[in-house]
Amino acid sequence: MIKAGVVGGTGYTGVELLRLLIRHPQVELKAVTSRAESGRRVEELYSNLRGYLDLAFSEPDIETLAECDIVFFATPNGVAMKQVPELLKRGVRVIDLAADFRIRDIPTWEKWYGLTHACPEFVAESVYGLPELNRDAIADARLVANPGCYPTAVQLGYKPLLDNDLIFEEGLVADCKSGTSGAGRQANVGTLLSEAGESFHAYGVSGHRHQPEILQGLIGMSHGKVQRVTFVPHLLPMIRGIHATLYARLKNGTSEQELHQLFEQAYQNEPFVDVMPLGSLPETRSVKGANQCRLAVYRPGNDDTVVVLSVIDNLVKGASGQAVQNMNIMFGLPEKEGLEIVGLLP
Amino acid sequence: MIKAGVVGGTGYTGVELLRLLIRHPQVELKAVTSRAESGRRVEELYSNLRGYLDLAFSEPDIETLAECDIVFFATPNGVAMKQVPELLKRGVRVIDLAADFRIRDIPTWEKWYGLTHACPEFVAESVYGLPELNRDAIADARLVANPGCYPTAVQLGYKPLLDNDLIFEEGLVADCKSGTSGAGRQANVGTLLSEAGESFHAYGVSGHRHQPEILQGLIGMSHGKVQRVTFVPHLLPMIRGIHATLYARLKNGTSEQELHQLFEQAYQNEPFVDVMPLGSLPETRSVKGANQCRLAVYRPGNDDTVVVLSVIDNLVKGASGQAVQNMNIMFGLPEKEGLEIVGLLP
Amino acid sequence: MIKAGVVGGTGYTGVELLRLLIRHPQVELKAVTSRAESGRRVEELYSNLRGYLDLAFSEPDIETLAECDIVFFATPNGVAMKQVPELLKRGVRVIDLAADFRIRDIPTWEKWYGLTHACPEFVAESVYGLPELNRDAIADARLVANPGCYPTAVQLGYKPLLDNDLIFEEGLVADCKSGTSGAGRQANVGTLLSEAGESFHAYGVSGHRHQPEILQGLIGMSHGKVQRVTFVPHLLPMIRGIHATLYARLKNGTSEQELHQLFEQAYQNEPFVDVMPLGSLPETRSVKGANQCRLAVYRPGNDDTVVVLSVIDNLVKGASGQAVQNMNIMFGLPEKEGLEIVGLLP
Amino acid sequence: MIKAGVVGGTGYTGVELLRLLIRHPQVELKAVTSRAESGRRVEELYSNLRGYLDLAFSEPDIETLAECDIVFFATPNGVAMKQVPELLKRGVRVIDLAADFRIRDIPTWEKWYGLTHACPEFVAESVYGLPELNRDAIADARLVANPGCYPTAVQLGYKPLLDNDLIFEEGLVADCKSGTSGAGRQANVGTLLSEAGESFHAYGVSGHRHQPEILQGLIGMSHGKVQRVTFVPHLLPMIRGIHATLYARLKNGTSEQELHQLFEQAYQNEPFVDVMPLGSLPETRSVKGANQCRLAVYRPGNDDTVVVLSVIDNLVKGASGQAVQNMNIMFGLPEKEGLEIVGLLP
Repeated sequence: MIKAGVVGGTGYTGVELLRLLIRHPQVELKAVTSRAESGRRVEELYSNLRGYLDLAFSEPDIETLAECDIVFFATPNGVAMKQVPELLKRGVRVIDLAADFRIRDIPTWEKWYGLTHACPEFVAESVYGLPELNRDAIADARLVANPGCYPTAVQLGYKPLLDNDLIFEEGLVADCKSGTSGAGRQANVGTLLSEAGESFHAYGVSGHRHQPEILQGLIGMSHGKVQRVTFVPHLLPMIRGIHATLYARLKNGTSEQELHQLFEQAYQNEPFVDVMPLGSLPETRSVKGANQCRLAVYRPGNDDTVVVLSVIDNLVKGASGQAVQNMNIMFGLPEKEGLEIVGLLP
Repeated sequence: MIKAGVVGGTGYTGVELLRLLIRHPQVELKAVTSRAESGRRVEELYSNLRGYLDLAFSEPDIETLAECDIVFFATPNGVAMKQVPELLKRGVRVIDLAADFRIRDIPTWEKWYGLTHACPEFVAESVYGLPELNRDAIADARLVANPGCYPTAVQLGYKPLLDNDLIFEEGLVADCKSGTSGAGRQANVGTLLSEAGESFHAYGVSGHRHQPEILQGLIGMSHGKVQRVTFVPHLLPMIRGIHATLYARLKNGTSEQELHQLFEQAYQNEPFVDVMPLGSLPETRSVKGANQCRLAVYRPGNDDTVVVLSVIDNLVKGASGQAVQNMNIMFGLPEKEGLEIVGLLP
Repeated sequence: MIKAGVVGGTGYTGVELLRLLIRHPQVELKAVTSRAESGRRVEELYSNLRGYLDLAFSEPDIETLAECDIVFFATPNGVAMKQVPELLKRGVRVIDLAADFRIRDIPTWEKWYGLTHACPEFVAESVYGLPELNRDAIADARLVANPGCYPTAVQLGYKPLLDNDLIFEEGLVADCKSGTSGAGRQANVGTLLSEAGESFHAYGVSGHRHQPEILQGLIGMSHGKVQRVTFVPHLLPMIRGIHATLYARLKNGTSEQELHQLFEQAYQNEPFVDVMPLGSLPETRSVKGANQCRLAVYRPGNDDTVVVLSVIDNLVKGASGQAVQNMNIMFGLPEKEGLEIVGLLP
Repeated sequence: MIKAGVVGGTGYTGVELLRLLIRHPQVELKAVTSRAESGRRVEELYSNLRGYLDLAFSEPDIETLAECDIVFFATPNGVAMKQVPELLKRGVRVIDLAADFRIRDIPTWEKWYGLTHACPEFVAESVYGLPELNRDAIADARLVANPGCYPTAVQLGYKPLLDNDLIFEEGLVADCKSGTSGAGRQANVGTLLSEAGESFHAYGVSGHRHQPEILQGLIGMSHGKVQRVTFVPHLLPMIRGIHATLYARLKNGTSEQELHQLFEQAYQNEPFVDVMPLGSLPETRSVKGANQCRLAVYRPGNDDTVVVLSVIDNLVKGASGQAVQNMNIMFGLPEKEGLEIVGLLP
């Protein structure tokens, strides 16, 4: 049994981790920490866990965490970087669900996150935890930077196009839409049901922290040829789900059918990426609660523009599910262990 | 392995059954039938099942179904009663998720459902599948009438009060609220998002088919003393969940704490009924996707009126989950087998 | 033209007042105050007002307000009571949309609101602003206590029953459901879309501030015979609308048709109370944005229990629309002036 | 007073027209027709109209309609074209809210709409009713083709860019999102709350009827230089509102501030197009129920890509409100008459 700890278990990625780890046959949950809720039983905050988790939140104490094989940080940005060095020293492996280790370039990270990085030397060591990109490196990693939700949906959508050199590197557009759970469990006027319900709007158009993460990924996939991407996130009047609608210009007249075949080939061995049949329209609800990315590819009107539709549950494949997938890889478990969850539909 | 068939797999209780049976370790799914969708792969209709179910809808052929150990009817009312006699004769056990066998009194059933019953002789044999009431009889049953969603929430809420003779039998009020999935996957103007979204209203106030089922249950629990119940259902602008708010007048001045203790005692051995701590407010989302009923009991202002709050997921404990629970009991499996699913929150 | 001021214009009842007053042909809006947003243009906070209101929030300065004919307080509880005496002295009439003057009994008010009342002598003078109850007194009032949202829906529903002495005074049950806008524009975890969306739960079952206000109203209507009422509010996963489902026991066998006629007679001259045809089911959306209460009355199964369904928009007839209606009455304007707004459906 | 008739008053654009015309000071509503609901009082179908409209649906009789000054067709595609010639002959002016007269090229229309056009000679005469484009022609028109909802949002967004020759004509992307009311009041599984709620997906990616209408508009604005546009519509889990996110490549390095100024100039005299301040993010709710288009323009990261955000209420500026605006222009009324409605927020 893998002894696991969750730091910052009170947010949505935290409770989602608990939902998954509780039912994972190879995991023993040792500690769920929260400074604010220390001493309170977890089920008091999250009644869906009643009967499944006999544990109280504890102080994020290094001695307790050091007894774990793996520690997940489901904390705000800037927390993990302060504790990771000590944990690694003690032989604990770490998956950070926040952004502390996602961006290779420290000045870029510091600019976007408004913080001074506490352990830049560990950024270089860390592995970006997108299994479809970095499976082997993840297996050996001590420290995994779990990707952001938008970057997961966008990178998986563009990957077959860039790997096969099918699109021009200029003019990439990622029009993305997310449910409100992506904003976390923070008291905030903008995500009140009275404000975000029955409405729709873009946000962060001038700049969003996931833009540099997406761009870093696309640069990597394209071996430096992609230099820009226009990323516009929008807030959906619903709780879970991300839909990325991706646009690019085709270099050659690759047909829709060929595109579809290339996507199918690209992901044929991936347990959690599902290329849907030609003509399908992935719905976010088809992955609700499930660690899946579903993709479809189109070439509308036989024009030069290729359109990729990519959906994930932002809390699962976009966060906690992907973290568990990474853990499975790191510990040599079957990659689907604990993650064979059918999406909740309707 | 139990060989299972699902008749009428295209509706919401059908797909929910599939979600549960697919992951049930003791079940092998042999057939999913649908006249309308025969030949079509199940995953085409329900993309959440992609990768989990390699099966096409088949014609509801008696020979195929007769090879099953158990057949679930997730059909409209009036379908099961036509096929049940033959299946039972062939040694197949049956759980009907529709209403064909729920009402003991045939004329009452025929009045409310507007049909002539095709096999009244089997109504007497059938067992009403509320495990908290009839566990032993279910274990031996060939034919189980799976309860309606509202009746499940209401009966579990009133049971400890009636068992302990705490309330007057007159003036019972069950004010119930349901998500739209209770109305099924039918093209219908009234449950369009444009009609049922951002709105709330009562329906069936003059009479709803679940009223006689609820009343039959309360009559049974009270040994005939309850003769009436006012049941008002309402439509919630959401998909899953039932909340029953139950009112009754206390015979004696039983305190809120005593009431709470009696509820805890009543359900202490029930795996799927959770009496929440005193002062709790059960949310429907805490049981989303889970086979749970959560209860709380109040005596506001120390008045004579007792208030019980009861929540279930109408598609799980209110339908398909309860059906699987009944199957587990019928086949001597651990009652929680395949049903230890944590509610999806947020 | 009536010179009007709004104190506390940043909340939902504030912006709703602005929406109504802007289009009111007899009103000139002189000041909209907000300590927090002073200096900021109103339309920056509420973009729906762009093009309609050329005004910035100002400090709640007594000199400015004293120039108004009427001042509306759309403030948290406990604010109006501090400023009302001075405004009345200066000859300004006041409508308080908060609760400072709703409860006649000062100790009761102080217990429920946790404050010491700053001007108890004005409570006696104030008029409870439910026009259907107190139209004449409102016309002459200097100070109107605008009713709460739940109390409006509940009192209008019970009034014909109590006026005609049709029901027993014991065992009244008001099962009420409200959209989230009733909780105001406050950063609050519980009313985030991620928390309150796709879910339903009761709250304040042990005690809610609207309970004593409802009870005071029912005591008044029944000339002291009603002594108790069980009030259970619930939170709906939507923004606007209240649905009150009211239960009582009939003294005599008044038929459903007679009940309907009595309701029609009771409200035949009321411009903003609509008794719907027999058998109708009022939807909250039918009053969205409109200053209407719609009612229906039932006697299900010819039992002794009468059921009244009452819907309002909590921000209009339940708050700001009713305040404008009160203003019209106070200033001798046609009662419908500025309030003939068709509900927004769908 | 203008005598107005509405043909096909039972759908959402129909009821929305009624909401607007009822309160229009210069309009007398003579007839609301519906074959299916003939004889039924309008308020029975739409309870929000109770008290405002003393009218029953009538048969779509030519004699009745011929007495009107203007007839609105709020019918399915293909209905207006059969009745328009006779009405025009009788001297009645017509606004068609459906698509019968929107597309100049008859074969294109017939291909996309699957019908043979009944009166192609009137297509040439008709005026495309986007006032911001064709105000003068609308004033003189006998027959106005009211634009589609998506085309309204998209054309208003691209217009200043194309008028000022700021963008390359290749690679235009219109990523659009609509509430479910755009699908009309049709019994349909896909727009049930249980299906379309809490989910998001694209549709019509291979081809949508609004694509040729958008393209025709952009061709016109660009004097034939635009030849293609990628249009991807998506379904939002909400009722009202369209958000168009428009992308194009800038020819020159026009700064964000210059872009903003050009937009402001372009629409400075338009009563119903609101260019929001630099950095604003238009929300669909800010135009709920209002005849407004709100725009914002961005150049994220100073890249070559310009992003325009455009929101409307699909039933108002995207349908019935725009129809009333066209009527005002046709009859020489102030353009804002009857349309000064503040958006319903929250």
